[in-house]
Amino acid sequence: MDPTTFETHPSRYHHWKLAIDGDLARLTMAVDDAHPHKPGYELKLNSYDLSVDIELADAIQRIRFEHPEVKCIVFGADLDRVFCSGANIYMLGLSTHSFKVNFCKFTNETRLYLEDASGSSGLASLAACKGTTAGGGYELALACDETMLVDDGNSAVSFPETPLLAVLPGTGGLTRLVDKRKVRRDRADVFCTTAEGIKGKRAKDWGLVDHLVSRTKWDASVTEAAKALAAKQTVVRGPAFVLPPLEGKIAADKLTYRYVELTFDAAARTAALTVRGPDAIEDPDAIAKTGAEPWALRAFRELDDALLRLRFDYPDIGIVAVRTVGDLAIVKACDEALAKSASGFAREVRLLQRRVLKRYDNTARSFYAVADRADSCFAGVLLELALGADRFYMLIDKDEKIAVTTSVANTGFFTTSTNLSRLDARFYGDPARVQKILARGVEGPIPSEEAEQLGIATIAADDIDFEDELRIAIEERASLSPDALTGMEASLRFVGPETLETKIFGRLSAWQNWIFTRANSTGQHGALTLYGQPERPQFQWKRT
Amino acid sequence: MDPTTFETHPSRYHHWKLAIDGDLARLTMAVDDAHPHKPGYELKLNSYDLSVDIELADAIQRIRFEHPEVKCIVFGADLDRVFCSGANIYMLGLSTHSFKVNFCKFTNETRLYLEDASGSSGLASLAACKGTTAGGGYELALACDETMLVDDGNSAVSFPETPLLAVLPGTGGLTRLVDKRKVRRDRADVFCTTAEGIKGKRAKDWGLVDHLVSRTKWDASVTEAAKALAAKQTVVRGPAFVLPPLEGKIAADKLTYRYVELTFDAAARTAALTVRGPDAIEDPDAIAKTGAEPWALRAFRELDDALLRLRFDYPDIGIVAVRTVGDLAIVKACDEALAKSASGFAREVRLLQRRVLKRYDNTARSFYAVADRADSCFAGVLLELALGADRFYMLIDKDEKIAVTTSVANTGFFTTSTNLSRLDARFYGDPARVQKILARGVEGPIPSEEAEQLGIATIAADDIDFEDELRIAIEERASLSPDALTGMEASLRFVGPETLETKIFGRLSAWQNWIFTRANSTGQHGALTLYGQPERPQFQWKRT
Repeated sequence: MDPTTFETHPSRYHHWKLAIDGDLARLTMAVDDAHPHKPGYELKLNSYDLSVDIELADAIQRIRFEHPEVKCIVFGADLDRVFCSGANIYMLGLSTHSFKVNFCKFTNETRLYLEDASGSSGLASLAACKGTTAGGGYELALACDETMLVDDGNSAVSFPETPLLAVLPGTGGLTRLVDKRKVRRDRADVFCTTAEGIKGKRAKDWGLVDHLVSRTKWDASVTEAAKALAAKQTVVRGPAFVLPPLEGKIAADKLTYRYVELTFDAAARTAALTVRGPDAIEDPDAIAKTGAEPWALRAFRELDDALLRLRFDYPDIGIVAVRTVGDLAIVKACDEALAKSASGFAREVRLLQRRVLKRYDNTARSFYAVADRADSCFAGVLLELALGADRFYMLIDKDEKIAVTTSVANTGFFTTSTNLSRLDARFYGDPARVQKILARGVEGPIPSEEAEQLGIATIAADDIDFEDELRIAIEERASLSPDALTGMEASLRFVGPETLETKIFGRLSAWQNWIFTRANSTGQHGALTLYGQPERPQFQWKRT
Repeated sequence: MDPTTFETHPSRYHHWKLAIDGDLARLTMAVDDAHPHKPGYELKLNSYDLSVDIELADAIQRIRFEHPEVKCIVFGADLDRVFCSGANIYMLGLSTHSFKVNFCKFTNETRLYLEDASGSSGLASLAACKGTTAGGGYELALACDETMLVDDGNSAVSFPETPLLAVLPGTGGLTRLVDKRKVRRDRADVFCTTAEGIKGKRAKDWGLVDHLVSRTKWDASVTEAAKALAAKQTVVRGPAFVLPPLEGKIAADKLTYRYVELTFDAAARTAALTVRGPDAIEDPDAIAKTGAEPWALRAFRELDDALLRLRFDYPDIGIVAVRTVGDLAIVKACDEALAKSASGFAREVRLLQRRVLKRYDNTARSFYAVADRADSCFAGVLLELALGADRFYMLIDKDEKIAVTTSVANTGFFTTSTNLSRLDARFYGDPARVQKILARGVEGPIPSEEAEQLGIATIAADDIDFEDELRIAIEERASLSPDALTGMEASLRFVGPETLETKIFGRLSAWQNWIFTRANSTGQHGALTLYGQPERPQFQWKRT
C-alpha cells in the first residue's frame, strides 16, 4: 500500500487556487476531476475527496502562518453554476468503512480549524456560493463566518444526503444547522429531507445563508462582505513564517521525523510513539526570524503528520505506547518562552499545538503513555500527551529521575474539545485537586510515586513489576474488539460539558458510523451503493 | 406476533419483591429464570430482560404514586452472592438489532426515572449490592443515589461488556461513571477493560461505590444508609393515588384507550395518533380523592403505553401523524389547575407528563403534528406534542377556529432531555421570541396563519393545498431510509446544551447502535454471538 501524503504546497495543488489580495485570501475551488485520491472515480462538479481536503487543510494552515496580512478567507469556485457539490459519492461508495470514517473525521477537523482561525486568530471566512452548494459544499459554507448565496432563481443550498443517499451530512452539517446557525429544528427537518434544497429568499429567511445577491452585483458584494469581515478582526497576526517541508522518512514499519518517531509492530498490532523534547531553551520569535523552525512548532507538525498516517495507513494498529525523551526543565522553559511571547507567530504555534493535541484526543486508538526511562520528559505541553492518554504508566526509580513537570502549558490554554483543560477533565468536579497539582508543580519535578498519589499517573510500579505489568496491559488491550474500544474511549475521554465540537465527533459521527454500516446505505441494494445507477435502492424498513 | 404488555402489578411480578417498610421501599430482585420475556433463554443469576425491566419500571412508578410515605428505595437481591449480573447475554444474542436498541432505550429511561424521582420527588435510592454486581447490575447501582458493596474479599462491581462481549455497557454506565460519579477517566478505562471488575477498598477509593460493608454488619448498615438518605428528603409527597389499569383495547391495527387512539396502516408504514383532551375543567386533587383518575394523568399514561407498543411491536411504522381533539380552553384550564395545586400528587402527575413527553422526543419515529379540524386542541401540555414533533402542519380555516393555545405548561416545566423547554429549544438563541409568543398566548388562541408567522407551525396552508401537501409529505417521509432518519432526528431534535441524559441517548446509544451492527460483536464469530460457547471470537482488527 502506498503511504498517504498529507504534506503539500500551493505550488503543487491540483484542486484549489490560492491568491492573496491585500487582507483577503481568495481560495478558489477548482477541482481537477482527473486527480482523485485513488483511481476509480472522477471528481466532477467540484466534488471532493481526501486529496482535495488535504490541500484545503494545507491552505488554511499556510494562510495562518505565511500570510499574516490576511484577515478573511473568501471561498469561491471557478465553475460558473456550481460552488461545491460535496463529498464525491462514488469515492464513498468505493471506500472501506474505516476509510469513510477517517475521511469524515479529517474533513470535520479541517472545518473546525476554520472556526478556530476565526475565533482565535483574527482570520475570518466567507463562503461565496455562486451556484449549487450541496452536501459537504454547504457544510464547508456552514463552517465559515458568513455565507453568501447567488439569487439566480436556481442556485440552492442543500443536504441531499438523507433523501438521496440514506446517510447523514457527515461533516458537522446537522449540528451547525441547529446549534451554530440556530435554524429552527422543524425547518431544518424540512431542509434536510428536501433533496433539491432551498434557494433564494426562503434560504435567507430560514437563516440558511446570510447574504442573497444577484449575479450582476456578485463580485462587488463578495468583496464588500469580505472586507467588512476583515475590518472586524482585532487580533494582531504575524510576523510571517514560511512552513518548511517535514522531510519525514516514511517506511512501512517506521516513520522517522526530526523529533518524532512512530514504529509499528504489525504482528502485535501495536505501535510505539516517541516525541523528543527540545535540545535547548528557545526563544521562538528569535529562531523564527532566522527562517528556522522552533521545536515547539516542528515537533507538533511532525506529530500531526504521524497521527494522520497512523489513522489512514495503519488501521490494524490498536494501541500506541507514547514516550517522551529529553529534559523536563528545557520543555518547561520552552513552554514559558512561548507563552510569554506576544507575537502573533507564537500564538499560532500555541494554537497549532492545541489542534494537534485535539487530533490526538480524537484518534480512535488506545494510547498508553509510558515514563520508564530517566530522560523521559513529560513536562508541560508534552505532559498533555500523558494526560490525554487512556492510561499513564510510570516506573518508580530509586533516584526519582523519572518524573513529570507542570508548566504554564497545563494551566488552561490547551483545552480538549470540551473546552476543559486536560487537568480539569482528569479531575472533573475537583478543581481544588488541579490547583494542588499546579502548586506542587511549581516546586519542581514530581516523581513517579508522588505522581500516582496525586492522580497524574494511572499506575506507578517499581522495576520488579513494571515491565511485565506494562507488557500484559498492552497485550490485553490489543486483544479486545476495536469497535467496542472506539466506543468506550469516545465515551470516557470526553467527560464534562459538551460543545459543538464534541457533538460533531461524539453524537453526529457515532450516528454516521452506524448508518454507514447499515444495508440501507452501503448494502448491495443500498442508496449509497446504487447512486448513479438506474436501479433504485431497496430499504429494510425497521426503525430502531 | 403477540403484543408486548407494559402494564403489570406487584401482585403479578415474577422477578421483583416489593415491600414497604416505613419510609423505605425494599425492592428485591428475585429473577425467576423460568419466566423470560420470550422463550429461548433462562434468566440465571439475577440477569434481566425486558420483562424484568417492565416490572422495575412499574414498581418505581407505583412507589411514586401509591406509596408517598416512602422516601428511599433500597435495591437488594434475594441471592446470597449475586446482586445482579446484568442484561441476559443469551437474550441479547437472540434479539434483532431493533429490539436490542429499543430494549436499551427502555432500560435507560427507567434508570433516568430513578434519578428523576430522587431529583424532583423526594424519593432517593440505595443500591445494596451484597454480591456480584456486573454490567447492567452495576448500571442500576450507578443510577441510585448511593451504592453499598459488600466487603467479602470476592464481590466486585464490573463492566465486563467490552472485554467479554465486544460491546459497551449500554445503559448509561460509561457516562455515569465519569460524568455523574466523576471517576477519573484513566481509572474508568482500567475498570471498563477488567472483566472481573474491582472489589473492596479499591472500589471505594476509586469512587466506584460509596460504602464498603462487611457481611456481618450488612443488614444494619443498609438500613442505616437508607434511613440517612430518607432523612435528607424535604419534598412533601402524596396523598396516595392507586393507579388503575389502563384497559386499552389492543388490536393489530389499532390501540384504543379512553383518551388515546393509535391506528396503523401497515402497507403505508404510517400511523395516526389521536389524543383527546379533557371533557371538563378538572381539579386533579378533588378527582383523585374519589379514586377516579384525572385526565392529566390518564391521558399521559395511555400515551406512554401507546408509545412503547409503537416502539416494540410496530418497527416498520416510520411516521406518525399526531392530532388532538377537544377544547383548547379546557386543556388550558386543566393545565392551570394542575400547576396551581401544591399537592405532591399533582406534582407527580406533572412529572409523569414530563417523562412521557421525553419518551415521545426519544422515540425513533418521525412525528408530524397536524391541526386540521376545528376541534383540534393543541393547547398547553398538548401543544408540547406539536412543539416536540419534527414538523407541525396547520390548516388555515376561514373562521380561525383552528388555533393553538399556550398555557403555564409551556413556560418551562416541561423540559426535554437538554433541560430546555420545547419553546426554548425551538427558538434556540432567541429568548425574546419565546417571551413574545407566551405574551401573545395570554391574549387567546393563535390561529394557523399567525402561528406560522410566529414560528409555532412549520407550514400553514388553506384547504386548496393542505390535504395534498400533508399527504405528499407523509408519503415522502415514509419512503426515506429509516436509519438515516433516526440519525438525522437524533441530531436535530436535541439542539442546545447537552446533559447526562442527552449524552446517554445521543453519544452512548449511537456508539452502541454502531457496535451492535459490527461483526466483532454480533457476527457469526462475534463475541456476543459466541458467549457461553467453547469457540473463541474472531475479531476483524481494523480500527475506525
